Amino acid sequence: MSAERPGIDAIREARERLDGVARVTPVYSSETLSRLAGRSVLLKAENLQRTGAFKIRGAYNTIAQLSEDERRAGVVAASAGNHGQAVAWAARQAEIAATIVVPEGAPMAKVEAARGYGARVEMVGDDFEESVAAARAFERDDGATFIHAFDDPRVVAGQGTLGLELVDALPPGPCTVVVPVGGGGLAAGIALALDALRPELRVVGVQAASCAPFAGRPPGGATIADGIAVKHPGELTRPILEDLLDDVVVVEDEEISQAIVLLLERVKLVVEGAGAAPVAAILAESIGGDGPVCAILAGGTIDATTMSSVIRYGLTASGRYLVVALLIPDRPGELARIVGTIASEHANILAIQHHREGRNISVLETEAELTLETRGEEHSQAVIRALADGGYTVRRLR
Amino acid sequence: MSAERPGIDAIREARERLDGVARVTPVYSSETLSRLAGRSVLLKAENLQRTGAFKIRGAYNTIAQLSEDERRAGVVAASAGNHGQAVAWAARQAEIAATIVVPEGAPMAKVEAARGYGARVEMVGDDFEESVAAARAFERDDGATFIHAFDDPRVVAGQGTLGLELVDALPPGPCTVVVPVGGGGLAAGIALALDALRPELRVVGVQAASCAPFAGRPPGGATIADGIAVKHPGELTRPILEDLLDDVVVVEDEEISQAIVLLLERVKLVVEGAGAAPVAAILAESIGGDGPVCAILAGGTIDATTMSSVIRYGLTASGRYLVVALLIPDRPGELARIVGTIASEHANILAIQHHREGRNISVLETEAELTLETRGEEHSQAVIRALADGGYTVRRLR
Repeated sequence: MSAERPGIDAIREARERLDGVARVTPVYSSETLSRLAGRSVLLKAENLQRTGAFKIRGAYNTIAQLSEDERRAGVVAASAGNHGQAVAWAARQAEIAATIVVPEGAPMAKVEAARGYGARVEMVGDDFEESVAAARAFERDDGATFIHAFDDPRVVAGQGTLGLELVDALPPGPCTVVVPVGGGGLAAGIALALDALRPELRVVGVQAASCAPFAGRPPGGATIADGIAVKHPGELTRPILEDLLDDVVVVEDEEISQAIVLLLERVKLVVEGAGAAPVAAILAESIGGDGPVCAILAGGTIDATTMSSVIRYGLTASGRYLVVALLIPDRPGELARIVGTIASEHANILAIQHHREGRNISVLETEAELTLETRGEEHSQAVIRALADGGYTVRRLR
Repeated sequence: MSAERPGIDAIREARERLDGVARVTPVYSSETLSRLAGRSVLLKAENLQRTGAFKIRGAYNTIAQLSEDERRAGVVAASAGNHGQAVAWAARQAEIAATIVVPEGAPMAKVEAARGYGARVEMVGDDFEESVAAARAFERDDGATFIHAFDDPRVVAGQGTLGLELVDALPPGPCTVVVPVGGGGLAAGIALALDALRPELRVVGVQAASCAPFAGRPPGGATIADGIAVKHPGELTRPILEDLLDDVVVVEDEEISQAIVLLLERVKLVVEGAGAAPVAAILAESIGGDGPVCAILAGGTIDATTMSSVIRYGLTASGRYLVVALLIPDRPGELARIVGTIASEHANILAIQHHREGRNISVLETEAELTLETRGEEHSQAVIRALADGGYTVRRLR
């Protein structure tokens, strides 16, 4: 397979292969996000794609082109994430065998998902590089075809079908499409499709600040947008993106977290860090261009524990958690008085911790640390005032 | 306005009024839910409706039929939930004034949402009944039209438009539609539409066990499905449901919570308790009938704090949180050894608490309570074995 850029015909052929296999995901306008961004915000809800991410487009388009011999030998991929699930799912659709190599200690939810789609899952190595090496060894020894996550023209053409759907769904006139960039397969596919059919549209890539090689930053650290934490963009995809992207911007994990919470609370969609990065960039007003912006919500694979942490973080950031410490006499009845004051202010108590050691606490006192849920910053301040009016010295911790 | 049952013509007229106003929400098949339920599960993603719930269908259909005089006087509604947001939103669409009465201490997120749609929000009374009384007083004194949440034929006809969309989207052949039942407006509207156009389909209502008057249970307690915690079904809706529903089943809050987590993790949709109740009923295999089942995911208004609690609850229920208590000598280095053992088992430590008082703890010991995230029950047991092999007495708390 040559590593030539796929043309618009290859992308159209991919769409035919994917007809009835992948979903045509909806494009929604979001009133809340539009108000916050000061311009019309459209959302391509690709998190609602089968398996929860765009990756099945490229994986299936590749697998559907295998020869009979290649089909018999099956496929292999190295990925604990969306690509692994997509290859497992696409192989089952095509009725061939798949092996997914993941690092030891990979999140069980992802391992189970790949197994649920019928793949054999091998846990090998301590990190992703070692899993890739194991998958490549499997390719050599067993003749299985290695399905690359992005650096293959069949994969890029498959992801490009999302671009064709944008051509159908976006309004006429100027518009900027904002795409997360990891290995670059999705961004390259979309950019190729739009360059052929709507060349007047802007396409902007987004990377997470801690791992943004395309934005010229040193490769990197951990990020909540693990789906785009790829250190080396592809040999095929890099020049396509250099030619066709109008800009590449970066967003911080804090901004991504807030975007995830907004999408959960106001748009009712579960979107992973990489998928929420375009929304974060739009809200940071770093996109530019005229007319509406369309964020590609590329995937929804977020661990439930991470989701829970992100929500708590988001609530704290928006002033809806209040943590205060009060020094109180260590005797029965004091806490009841404090709790009563908080109840009369209609705040919700989430946790109470007592500290009797350290922190300048005298022998007859205890420090009560209260974690409260409030309606926002204004309400938090009212609660603090009410406690102060009750005679307590209140120290605000968060 | 007479309280006659709306016919199919009234529902079709409602669809015309709602054209370009409400979204035609998608119907998705869910592979994971189908596997768990042992039959094909379809999901009507009405949580993606504008404002996040079906209520705008009925609210807008009612408001669009007001006279010029009524429009000038505006509308009033009593609801801290989806109906309040829907009336605020629909009134703004119709360019008339809206007042939403909510109880004092209503969740700020919901108050802010109604305000964000341009409504005046009045916080009156300690509970819902007092808010309704205040809204009715406002109707008397200011001439504003009170928009009922369910017991009005215009509202029922509006909700019935969702039934028309089911007629377009459901496959031919037998199918059971599963609808949450609170006041009964949505269930009545859907049942009327299907009775007229697809009378062979079954329609089953779902109520939360702790507040299920339709299922003949004494009215009610609190439930996570607050959107359907209505004590008295409507005078208009009750006989419609008695005529047209094939069955009414109840689900426990625990089942609803697990359904919410499944929808978040596997379907990538944020669905509130009432909206997840049909999925809970399907997974409890209490629906009956042949062919696929279609769950109406009626809304997505779930407080972020509640979402976070539900996720944690769901992870615990599925064995992915492990809480153990270990008695350890109270000296430096012991904890490091324990933490190392856990790390080598690839479990994630979420919290450590030390107890030095009570619980048969000797003076030289401390009890460490560890909250761990594991890959499931099997992994939890492996972690416990590893700690026991290290010489610790492990007490499992959860």
